[in-house]
Amino acid sequence: MRQQSFFSPTMRDVPQGADITSHQLMLRAGLIRQTASGIYSYLPLGYKVLRKIENIVREEMNNAGAQEILMPAVQPAEIWEESGRIHDYGPELMRLKDRHNRDFVLGATHEEVITSLVRDELNSYKKLPVNLYQIQNKYRDERRPRFGVLRSREFVMKDAYSFDSSEEGLEESYWNMFRAYQSVFKRCGLDFRAVEADAGAIGGKGGTHEFMALSDVGEDTIAYSDASDFAANIEVAKIADGYEKPARPETSMAPIDTPSMKTIDDLMKGLSIESTSIIKSVLFIADEEPVLVLVRGDHEVNEIKVANLLDSSEVRLAEDAEVEQVMGCRTGFIGPVRAPENVKILADYAVRGIAEAVTGANESDKHFINVHPDRDITISSYEDLRFIKEGDPAPDGKGTIRFAKGIEVGQVFKLGTKYSKALKADFLDEQGKAQPLIMGCYGIGVSRTIAAIVEQHHDESGIIWPKNVAPFDIHLLTMNVKQEDQAALGESLYKKLREAGFDVLYDDRKERAGVKFKDADLYGIPVRVACGKKAAEDIVEVKLREGGEAVEVAVSGLMDYLKQHA
Amino acid sequence: MRQQSFFSPTMRDVPQGADITSHQLMLRAGLIRQTASGIYSYLPLGYKVLRKIENIVREEMNNAGAQEILMPAVQPAEIWEESGRIHDYGPELMRLKDRHNRDFVLGATHEEVITSLVRDELNSYKKLPVNLYQIQNKYRDERRPRFGVLRSREFVMKDAYSFDSSEEGLEESYWNMFRAYQSVFKRCGLDFRAVEADAGAIGGKGGTHEFMALSDVGEDTIAYSDASDFAANIEVAKIADGYEKPARPETSMAPIDTPSMKTIDDLMKGLSIESTSIIKSVLFIADEEPVLVLVRGDHEVNEIKVANLLDSSEVRLAEDAEVEQVMGCRTGFIGPVRAPENVKILADYAVRGIAEAVTGANESDKHFINVHPDRDITISSYEDLRFIKEGDPAPDGKGTIRFAKGIEVGQVFKLGTKYSKALKADFLDEQGKAQPLIMGCYGIGVSRTIAAIVEQHHDESGIIWPKNVAPFDIHLLTMNVKQEDQAALGESLYKKLREAGFDVLYDDRKERAGVKFKDADLYGIPVRVACGKKAAEDIVEVKLREGGEAVEVAVSGLMDYLKQHA
Repeated sequence: MRQQSFFSPTMRDVPQGADITSHQLMLRAGLIRQTASGIYSYLPLGYKVLRKIENIVREEMNNAGAQEILMPAVQPAEIWEESGRIHDYGPELMRLKDRHNRDFVLGATHEEVITSLVRDELNSYKKLPVNLYQIQNKYRDERRPRFGVLRSREFVMKDAYSFDSSEEGLEESYWNMFRAYQSVFKRCGLDFRAVEADAGAIGGKGGTHEFMALSDVGEDTIAYSDASDFAANIEVAKIADGYEKPARPETSMAPIDTPSMKTIDDLMKGLSIESTSIIKSVLFIADEEPVLVLVRGDHEVNEIKVANLLDSSEVRLAEDAEVEQVMGCRTGFIGPVRAPENVKILADYAVRGIAEAVTGANESDKHFINVHPDRDITISSYEDLRFIKEGDPAPDGKGTIRFAKGIEVGQVFKLGTKYSKALKADFLDEQGKAQPLIMGCYGIGVSRTIAAIVEQHHDESGIIWPKNVAPFDIHLLTMNVKQEDQAALGESLYKKLREAGFDVLYDDRKERAGVKFKDADLYGIPVRVACGKKAAEDIVEVKLREGGEAVEVAVSGLMDYLKQHA
Repeated sequence: MRQQSFFSPTMRDVPQGADITSHQLMLRAGLIRQTASGIYSYLPLGYKVLRKIENIVREEMNNAGAQEILMPAVQPAEIWEESGRIHDYGPELMRLKDRHNRDFVLGATHEEVITSLVRDELNSYKKLPVNLYQIQNKYRDERRPRFGVLRSREFVMKDAYSFDSSEEGLEESYWNMFRAYQSVFKRCGLDFRAVEADAGAIGGKGGTHEFMALSDVGEDTIAYSDASDFAANIEVAKIADGYEKPARPETSMAPIDTPSMKTIDDLMKGLSIESTSIIKSVLFIADEEPVLVLVRGDHEVNEIKVANLLDSSEVRLAEDAEVEQVMGCRTGFIGPVRAPENVKILADYAVRGIAEAVTGANESDKHFINVHPDRDITISSYEDLRFIKEGDPAPDGKGTIRFAKGIEVGQVFKLGTKYSKALKADFLDEQGKAQPLIMGCYGIGVSRTIAAIVEQHHDESGIIWPKNVAPFDIHLLTMNVKQEDQAALGESLYKKLREAGFDVLYDDRKERAGVKFKDADLYGIPVRVACGKKAAEDIVEVKLREGGEAVEVAVSGLMDYLKQHA
């Protein structure tokens, strides 16, 4: 491609409103432009990268035996009614009406469409397993789109759906996809971790892993062990129950005045105690019933864990008015001692390990001291109810927990029968009995993978594309196109390199050398070949974008050099 | 691909509601399934064909120097306000609001998005010409979606947009795309014509051609010459002005009673005359002004021609009440003789050639006879105002007009500055003066191209794919997988054929031979290789889907045979 006629405008300055490096560089290098908030156009350079990633995904999916299809983005709302997700999704789901006033949604995912697509076709165990995938636009009306294509409202996703006749089959399909995802992200040059995760609005209770590209700008936090393979999203990272019950203390529980000491910090300062000797009480409403959850003062309640444990259709934090109504006192002073009898009390494992605790007295401006959980509180059960912390022992018993930030680039789900039951997609088993199809679903955020790659592969001058996803193989520059020998060598190399099978961007513009080098660094094509002052001697300058020094190479030896280094 | 695990369900019966062959066969062969009215999912077999066509389009676009990009399907309504098209499009344009109540549309085409995308970037003649294209979903909320993917509401389109600094540049870009389109449709195996056409809602007055796949189910009618290259959509086909003014007749104009003779047919029967001696009068309202259009009784007024000629912002047929108000009599009896002075009268060329005409008298139940246009009517001018007819002389003076039906698979437009002016997309010319970009736009209906191919390539048993767009190269069948020698030969050929670079669908199912042959005919893969009873003798049966006889071929000679025939 001749750069003179290549539409890929660069910017010298950091664009306004672009807060993270990948967003800035994708705009500056002319990969994308914003069309509306959270809605982007891909220019030729960005689209080439998108296609490279799509093709890697497509190859790995095909190798894994998945079959490519294409479903519509506009979906009838009625199948979302059948699955019930039309209510779960809320305003993130974009909705529209057609000219006949019928309701449609823009697909956020395609579980409903695919399930209704196969429900009359995959009707026998003989036709299973099948895995179908597509690479297609998805829509999520984010409340606050940001970070460029990392959190956008229209984006390219690969979504696959597996259909099995048994749990063992699902297990096989799931790990098959898991391995394909590892290959995809490895080929994309990403440093990533597969972590245990929460199923969120996709649902299904069979288990799920997120594929996280490690990056400080990631919106998710990963807890991992410094001594094992363990890695999980902190939303779901399990806690090891290593908290022994201490001996009953000799002291007795007693009330004390704690005026205005509403927070853990207030208590630590006011009473000169450690947060580890405080029991924090948080009131939830689970299907209209109050549940008091206790965690240690230095810990945070994990609402997802509470909700999963209670298995209620709705679990939410109690509002202030509800707290006062149920507990009879203001938030900040509630506690488990002598709590109303209708309040179920659940405690995190760590609470068991506190011998003499401070906790709210259910009376304004008062707390109890010397509370011994086993003696003074009626606890229904000790459970895993909190977020994991750095320094915690890893739940697999090996090593200590560390945190890292990650960008979610993929997720795999064991859906089970959630959608096949709701949409009545049955198959006949070997006994001729109708059973719901056992499903898995598997997503890759193709557009956000680009951003993740840029976050991991750049320097202060621009992007440094890993070879497999680079928009071109070689960036050929003629430093001064008005110099005949340089222009002639440039033209001849442009021809030769393409004949040798390289995809070449050829900077044939009438620009200054400085501009050309700056643009080349910004674009980040792996190999730069410059025809400059030594063109007459048939010498070019070759520089690898990734940390290489510029090296003079004789044209006669260029192909060998590129074979070795490019 | 092993057919056992291939998701491509066939149907034996003609599906309900599928009125045309391509729709029936695409459903029966498992290429597509309907997700909602006019909204389809592509199953693996259909998607493979879609990709083949996409890749042909992509190659031809790249060869023509166009650069691939990707724009969003969800577009901010405000740029459609800027261009004014939000009003032109009406209910065909799908609209939605985001969570902040901002207006968006689902892109029917992308002139607005691309113009706003380049408007700050293509700011100098030095950066021109540029041609950008994408292959992407488009949305049109058809009032009556039908014929499967031929008239659907979500469909795949290739749209390209050229930007030039001069009219000559646009001319070059236009014919460059025109030639690329010829290559695309030739490679797709289509019998097609490029015809002059109307620009419709896309707009621009520089000229446009439609690419029409000839087919009896086409919704457009093409007028072509039986003796030259002339071809045009009947909407715009020009008429040669070959109508001489006859000598003034000796008879005088006279009123006659024509009770209840409101139509041309009534007059022909009632007065025993030919339609060619009747002048038909049709009243239009052009920007609030009445215009009476006259055509010969056997001709039909072409409203597009009337609108183009008048160049008014709104031209429409007068309603009955308006007719009575303006002409003072009922529809059916209006005429140009002694018409009110404020009514402009335009006549089609052919009217000039009538010596003694019958026409309405502007009085109920009365007509004039012996009307000589030149003598008795005040005609502003004679123009080309009617639809062309079979049998008319071709407008290029060569041959006679014939009609054919066509499916529109592509269209190219010289847009000129319609969108660049509206969206203020200027470039600086060589004199440093700001000028609006000169645009062209170029569309290919990728999904409907599939349907057009099927319409042209099928027989009573199923589809007959042209080689370039066939989903697989070879359909390999093991007739009885329980026969060890057949199964062994099938497996070995499946391996060998793939190693030789063929894309093979291998029917390894436990089905009867009849089912396998029927499915193979339906799928329409160009070459069928069957391992049957002579497997033990290393003999297979090869049949070309297109009209071939089944031939026995020794396995040792199979590769040579396929090289010659496949």
